[in-house]
Amino acid sequence: MLNIALFGAGRIGQIHAVSIASHKETCLYSVIDPYQENAQILAQKYQSRIQTTEEAMFDPDVHGVLIASATDTHADLIELAARHNKMIFCEKPVHLNLERIRQCLAVVKTSQVPLFVGFNRRYDPQFRRLKNLFQAGKIGNAESLIITSRDPSPPSAEYIQVSGGIFRDMTIHDFDMARFIIGEEPCTIYAQGSNLVDPAIGLAGDIDTAFIVMKFPSGAMATIANSRRSGYGYDQRLELHGEKGLLTAGNIKENNVELWGESGCLSAKPEHFFLQRYREAYIAEWNHFVDVMAGRATPETTGFDGEQALFLADKSLESLKIGKEIKL
Amino acid sequence: MLNIALFGAGRIGQIHAVSIASHKETCLYSVIDPYQENAQILAQKYQSRIQTTEEAMFDPDVHGVLIASATDTHADLIELAARHNKMIFCEKPVHLNLERIRQCLAVVKTSQVPLFVGFNRRYDPQFRRLKNLFQAGKIGNAESLIITSRDPSPPSAEYIQVSGGIFRDMTIHDFDMARFIIGEEPCTIYAQGSNLVDPAIGLAGDIDTAFIVMKFPSGAMATIANSRRSGYGYDQRLELHGEKGLLTAGNIKENNVELWGESGCLSAKPEHFFLQRYREAYIAEWNHFVDVMAGRATPETTGFDGEQALFLADKSLESLKIGKEIKL
Amino acid sequence: MLNIALFGAGRIGQIHAVSIASHKETCLYSVIDPYQENAQILAQKYQSRIQTTEEAMFDPDVHGVLIASATDTHADLIELAARHNKMIFCEKPVHLNLERIRQCLAVVKTSQVPLFVGFNRRYDPQFRRLKNLFQAGKIGNAESLIITSRDPSPPSAEYIQVSGGIFRDMTIHDFDMARFIIGEEPCTIYAQGSNLVDPAIGLAGDIDTAFIVMKFPSGAMATIANSRRSGYGYDQRLELHGEKGLLTAGNIKENNVELWGESGCLSAKPEHFFLQRYREAYIAEWNHFVDVMAGRATPETTGFDGEQALFLADKSLESLKIGKEIKL
Amino acid sequence: MLNIALFGAGRIGQIHAVSIASHKETCLYSVIDPYQENAQILAQKYQSRIQTTEEAMFDPDVHGVLIASATDTHADLIELAARHNKMIFCEKPVHLNLERIRQCLAVVKTSQVPLFVGFNRRYDPQFRRLKNLFQAGKIGNAESLIITSRDPSPPSAEYIQVSGGIFRDMTIHDFDMARFIIGEEPCTIYAQGSNLVDPAIGLAGDIDTAFIVMKFPSGAMATIANSRRSGYGYDQRLELHGEKGLLTAGNIKENNVELWGESGCLSAKPEHFFLQRYREAYIAEWNHFVDVMAGRATPETTGFDGEQALFLADKSLESLKIGKEIKL
Repeated sequence: MLNIALFGAGRIGQIHAVSIASHKETCLYSVIDPYQENAQILAQKYQSRIQTTEEAMFDPDVHGVLIASATDTHADLIELAARHNKMIFCEKPVHLNLERIRQCLAVVKTSQVPLFVGFNRRYDPQFRRLKNLFQAGKIGNAESLIITSRDPSPPSAEYIQVSGGIFRDMTIHDFDMARFIIGEEPCTIYAQGSNLVDPAIGLAGDIDTAFIVMKFPSGAMATIANSRRSGYGYDQRLELHGEKGLLTAGNIKENNVELWGESGCLSAKPEHFFLQRYREAYIAEWNHFVDVMAGRATPETTGFDGEQALFLADKSLESLKIGKEIKL
Repeated sequence: MLNIALFGAGRIGQIHAVSIASHKETCLYSVIDPYQENAQILAQKYQSRIQTTEEAMFDPDVHGVLIASATDTHADLIELAARHNKMIFCEKPVHLNLERIRQCLAVVKTSQVPLFVGFNRRYDPQFRRLKNLFQAGKIGNAESLIITSRDPSPPSAEYIQVSGGIFRDMTIHDFDMARFIIGEEPCTIYAQGSNLVDPAIGLAGDIDTAFIVMKFPSGAMATIANSRRSGYGYDQRLELHGEKGLLTAGNIKENNVELWGESGCLSAKPEHFFLQRYREAYIAEWNHFVDVMAGRATPETTGFDGEQALFLADKSLESLKIGKEIKL
Repeated sequence: MLNIALFGAGRIGQIHAVSIASHKETCLYSVIDPYQENAQILAQKYQSRIQTTEEAMFDPDVHGVLIASATDTHADLIELAARHNKMIFCEKPVHLNLERIRQCLAVVKTSQVPLFVGFNRRYDPQFRRLKNLFQAGKIGNAESLIITSRDPSPPSAEYIQVSGGIFRDMTIHDFDMARFIIGEEPCTIYAQGSNLVDPAIGLAGDIDTAFIVMKFPSGAMATIANSRRSGYGYDQRLELHGEKGLLTAGNIKENNVELWGESGCLSAKPEHFFLQRYREAYIAEWNHFVDVMAGRATPETTGFDGEQALFLADKSLESLKIGKEIKL
Repeated sequence: MLNIALFGAGRIGQIHAVSIASHKETCLYSVIDPYQENAQILAQKYQSRIQTTEEAMFDPDVHGVLIASATDTHADLIELAARHNKMIFCEKPVHLNLERIRQCLAVVKTSQVPLFVGFNRRYDPQFRRLKNLFQAGKIGNAESLIITSRDPSPPSAEYIQVSGGIFRDMTIHDFDMARFIIGEEPCTIYAQGSNLVDPAIGLAGDIDTAFIVMKFPSGAMATIANSRRSGYGYDQRLELHGEKGLLTAGNIKENNVELWGESGCLSAKPEHFFLQRYREAYIAEWNHFVDVMAGRATPETTGFDGEQALFLADKSLESLKIGKEIKL
């Protein structure tokens, strides 16, 4: 049984706690959170202990850490865990500053502990299936990819101010998805955006609606369509067009019931948000990390993926500011 | 060029007039209708003449007749045309009385003119494609067929009174469809029904909602679901289940536009009624009849099909009355 | 915490074990199964004890029993549990003999313990939503219901021989669904069937393909379409047509990925079988039974529902044999 | 009756000939085409005469001209018709050179004859409905538009060489669609592209796969996804995202038949190409032009629209070459 110390007992930490406790090879050994109340709820439910960061790091019974704490603590905790030889699962992003990420990854490299970065969408069974069918040659070479990613409703202006901006906070998942699907590093990037959803987002210096265009060395291209507010649930779709046809991964509707009447056919909207939509992805990424801890696999998404996604976010921001595509 | 005399210039006659005039091998030669006004509109539009029944029958330039007049004139006109050696396209039904149909078909047989009975749905490209895929072996042997057939809204009580009842007026198409798809004559039939849509229909001694179950010699079965009112357009669907899978022919929606919002996804309802839904079927059945007239084909739907469909309607009524399945 | 003794550690018992263990108010206290091996696996996984039937019944710490053992043991275990004052969750059917069910329910009545019978499909979120929208008046009064229920592939001939026949074994769920959706007891029933899927089923005196038609006092009607083999996964659909429109609950596909190419659009087939399709229904029915045990609800599906469903199965068999609809 | 002289009896001229002949207010008066054979077929079929350009222009009985001849003749014929006071329906594009268009429109302006430019897609009932629902406020203000436009297969290299390039030849429809849907003139444009479909296209100095991003003064943005080859039919879709939700206009499939089996659900691909997909649009645009000729309407799509679409094509090419967005 692998003992896991969970850093962060908030919304996303609670999701991971279920995965850890449900997996037959892992155990929620301890919970670490400055907000004692959250920590206590989890500890009680799963019969775990509460630890401080130091206790967890020095505890020889802790085999792995799952870092789901505040974004600005990720890099420090990764370094600490690496130095204490704990295997690391870290929520994205590693950090909002590219230099800090690179330092951090250097420390991890020295320690040689495995570091998994939680780009959960890669483990979504829909997107994974699309990728597998593409790799199996069903549509030949990739030519164009359209990633649609719209949140149901915008976050608070307070959140926006510490988020690092839409590209680092929201599009970062889509940058990673583009790299995952196409299987290449982009060579140019262009971004265009507007503040249409909430004026407070504009006042915070950010945009809330964006299109990004990337070109890859093979000539394949990708477009990302983002919005902080959909009006119809969480819109998460992929369209990959290749030589021989098209692969699409559509939204999952809240239910399959339809009402037909005089005004037409009314069916359900997409599942509400990421906790519903990516429920299976959270389980699948944990299964993968358990394989990593057990030595049966190496991390599919690493610190390098975190670094590259942030790099693309930074370059998008630069493109948006100067109105040019950026060569990468 | 084949000259056609059109009997009946009402709604369905007007549909056929377009097909006749548009086909490169046929010409709307004359129009016959006791309501002179309707006849004149068609004659003027297509530069045709107005004739009486006698004139048309004795006119050696008339090659074929298209009978789209009142139901109770069909059998008489068929016999007259047969005796005058005109090739015959007759709207269904041949007659509402089975004995009268048999007499009439005997006359046609003697004359040896081709008689085509207009079971238009067999020529619908959707249903035809389903039949073709079935015959091509895509699902193996037929096991069960579900025919859904609901009108958008009920006809007037006056119409109901002369209609011959739901089985002879409405289900007759579905009986023919079942025979067409399965390719066998049923050996048992059972009908159940209710008066739910309009009390006036019940007062006229009829039902408006029905389920029919038929069994065929191969063991395959068919169910027909009928209603005189859908609430959401014209509901015309087939589901054919076989050894290896399922073939479905769904409704055609009025358009492909969807509106996604807080309350879900709103899409269009099925096309309104038979003039829209079977537009292409009317053209296709005319194309087939032209092939028949030109000697390139024999009628796919004949007087015998008209007779059998009415026979099943009569037996359904009998089953409904006695609460038993009828052996055929 | 409510302690549950689980009778039966086979496939369906294992499903329920997860629900019991995951619910915050219940605990898998003990497992009872003549096959010690199955019992041991569950006991170990959930840190439960192994008991004999007698031990469990006399154990004052057992609050409720979940009966998921062989069908022919259900009635005896229900009576035993009722006499020992344990709250009862029993998998359907209560028994394959109607008289035995009535005896058994009489015993339960005397003891006044709650008895829940596991017609799991009523708790499927799709079907429940359809029912709720109907009850909310979205389509007005019910007029016709079509229940499609096809298994992916037939069971073994051995199973068929002890199954009680397709109506008691498979259609029983659909009889209950018809009663649940329409909210009335049917007043007539008619059944037609064939042996098309596997000759061994015919040799065992059973059919594998069936249509059933029921009429209800309000005039509403229901049809059930059954097959022991679909060829395309587990086909579980409802269509309820009412005064103002149609409610449908479609299949849930295995995934949402589509492949578009020269030969058309290929999408996934329905989820494989009941363990996948009704995953959420098993959890929801357990949640309901916990509410029952906690005194917050009374059983929505009771022994009476089990009795009525079997009654309709028996009458269907009678109708099939004599070729008449049966007045109920 | 309005007499129409048709310039060009090729594929697209034949389509328009049907519309002209079928409309109750117009008559195919004459056909003009250097290839006498094509002209003769049309003239015979519709009992029209064959004229030279001069004869048609000087013929006082010609009320309107429909220009469907080779692209490089459009501007000359428009000017000629304008000078002879004929009402003008011209296929897009007016010309491939922006200056030439401006000259030509100046001539038209002087003559005051109405000039309709055939951006047929605006008259597609699907796209028109999407636009109408948007204007009716169903999704609030426009925020982002995604236009997918992929041809089934690439044209010959010879065609590519005289086409003016993908932006002027193919994307020109999509530029017009973006202006039509958003209802504003874009203020920036960016284009990215690749040669992936056919090396001969690259050798001809063109690309075959493209993404374009436009921004409009309101902050709304539009993306166009183009390919010269889809692999699955003609892919013509719109997605308009607004404040309150999403409007989509999907592809129209070749048929509604589905085949469900072990490998999933196989349905039809989109209609093959523009002659099928925009059949109704061609009729609708002709109906509109008849309204224009009869004085009941003014042209909805004019020379200015032709000029603007070409302007955007030219600017896209410039953007592609310099790797920057262009301010307009």
